[in-house]
Amino acid sequence: MPEDLSRLCIHTITTKPWPLEVAVDKYAAAGVGGISIWDDAATDIGIPRTRQILDGSPLQVVSYVRGGFFPNHNREARQHSLDNNRRLIDDAAEIGAPLLVLVCGAEPRQSLEESRRQIQAGIEALIDHSAGCGVKLAIEPLHPMYADTRSAINTLGQANQMAEAIDHVQVGIAVDVYHLWWDDRLEHEIQRCGANDNLYAFHICDWKVPTQDMLLDRGLMGEGCIDVPLIRSWVEAGGFRGFHEVEIFSNTYWSMDQDEFLKRIITAYRNFS
Amino acid sequence: MPEDLSRLCIHTITTKPWPLEVAVDKYAAAGVGGISIWDDAATDIGIPRTRQILDGSPLQVVSYVRGGFFPNHNREARQHSLDNNRRLIDDAAEIGAPLLVLVCGAEPRQSLEESRRQIQAGIEALIDHSAGCGVKLAIEPLHPMYADTRSAINTLGQANQMAEAIDHVQVGIAVDVYHLWWDDRLEHEIQRCGANDNLYAFHICDWKVPTQDMLLDRGLMGEGCIDVPLIRSWVEAGGFRGFHEVEIFSNTYWSMDQDEFLKRIITAYRNFS
Repeated sequence: MPEDLSRLCIHTITTKPWPLEVAVDKYAAAGVGGISIWDDAATDIGIPRTRQILDGSPLQVVSYVRGGFFPNHNREARQHSLDNNRRLIDDAAEIGAPLLVLVCGAEPRQSLEESRRQIQAGIEALIDHSAGCGVKLAIEPLHPMYADTRSAINTLGQANQMAEAIDHVQVGIAVDVYHLWWDDRLEHEIQRCGANDNLYAFHICDWKVPTQDMLLDRGLMGEGCIDVPLIRSWVEAGGFRGFHEVEIFSNTYWSMDQDEFLKRIITAYRNFS
Repeated sequence: MPEDLSRLCIHTITTKPWPLEVAVDKYAAAGVGGISIWDDAATDIGIPRTRQILDGSPLQVVSYVRGGFFPNHNREARQHSLDNNRRLIDDAAEIGAPLLVLVCGAEPRQSLEESRRQIQAGIEALIDHSAGCGVKLAIEPLHPMYADTRSAINTLGQANQMAEAIDHVQVGIAVDVYHLWWDDRLEHEIQRCGANDNLYAFHICDWKVPTQDMLLDRGLMGEGCIDVPLIRSWVEAGGFRGFHEVEIFSNTYWSMDQDEFLKRIITAYRNFS
């Protein structure tokens, strides 16, 4: 189990009720090492103000979330998505985030194969811009229950295949235990991901039993059925030395006192990660 | 698209508001060829009465649903599950169902690997009894969103591996488009399943966009994002000549007029399967 909090990172979406300035102060006061920024938290107050808040804090900015959503039946919409991703890359650079996490998207009106082709083309179209901005891109494979509209990349195997096909240092992978825990090939695919230097981020939370909502009922580590320490051991055996990012979407936790929730996050991180 | 209804089978759970006797009459009157029986529909009225109703109908009994739920932390509970499965096999034989579909189960307090070992051991323990009764068993891989408590078998690849390890004519696989549509290895795994003579059942419905409930919001064929005709073509290329079983769990459809729903099932089957 982690002895200190220097590698603990919290996504701002986790404590959504807190404005960015409050989240930054609270995380830092608790000794948390890093922060990932949900784009709403930044655009609500503007990118310059976001930068100012982060510059004044000891927190390391780990990632900006979330780009992606490349596939669309309509070519103009795909172009619009690229423009939007370039703006997100600019914003990430501006606030000092070295990584933009990609929720790659899916288009229910076409096959998953076609969506994957569009995802790969979309990511490739962003490489030069992202390199120029010094912001890397992380493909985040999403749970198969999101294959209809959120991502046609649903296993680490698929993400590995795409990252290897793109084969560029600008493009790696974000491994999230929530999306991938059920896969019997996970250990093997994490090893492959690390061996190809594609392991760019590691997200943690838990799968509650039962889960009441497909989107907004994630649990704290230790609260569900995911063996987070085991998966972390695979990620570290794969050479990963980055942050452990807590990303929890939860109506239950968003409705409770956020100071109390932050305490629970830290306890869960110490005991069940 | 299917020209007639001789290979259309409906699971009684699909028209849950109808008692078995009504469902049997309505399906037969509509020209549906087969019926699969949800165990509640049978046990509510008793097995002898179920047999009597089915004997008096032209419908072919395709399968009895559902056995399984093998894994448990507790050995006594595992034994209890085997006893329950033997009873279900007896009931299946008694009502003339040649196949018992297995929702294999998962135990969140242990690893998926351990659950899979217990599933395999459980199925193997049932082979003699099922052979004696003339009832085959079908492993049904379930969507990964059910990996916490309903099934540790979440891809057709895993089901194939287990069926091949057991390697007995009593044990095959039920392919359900709802659980498997997202998998980029599906065509290959269906081919493998057919080549090993393990393709015992084929279930159809659709994945609604958006899906409101993890359990009870399945759609009619053509209503969502699954390419049912494509997957059927793979299943048939794999040598499958059995029924196309409509299995829809849906609060929406259960709350509507069931005669109207049956008409919609048949239209959807004709146009989108």
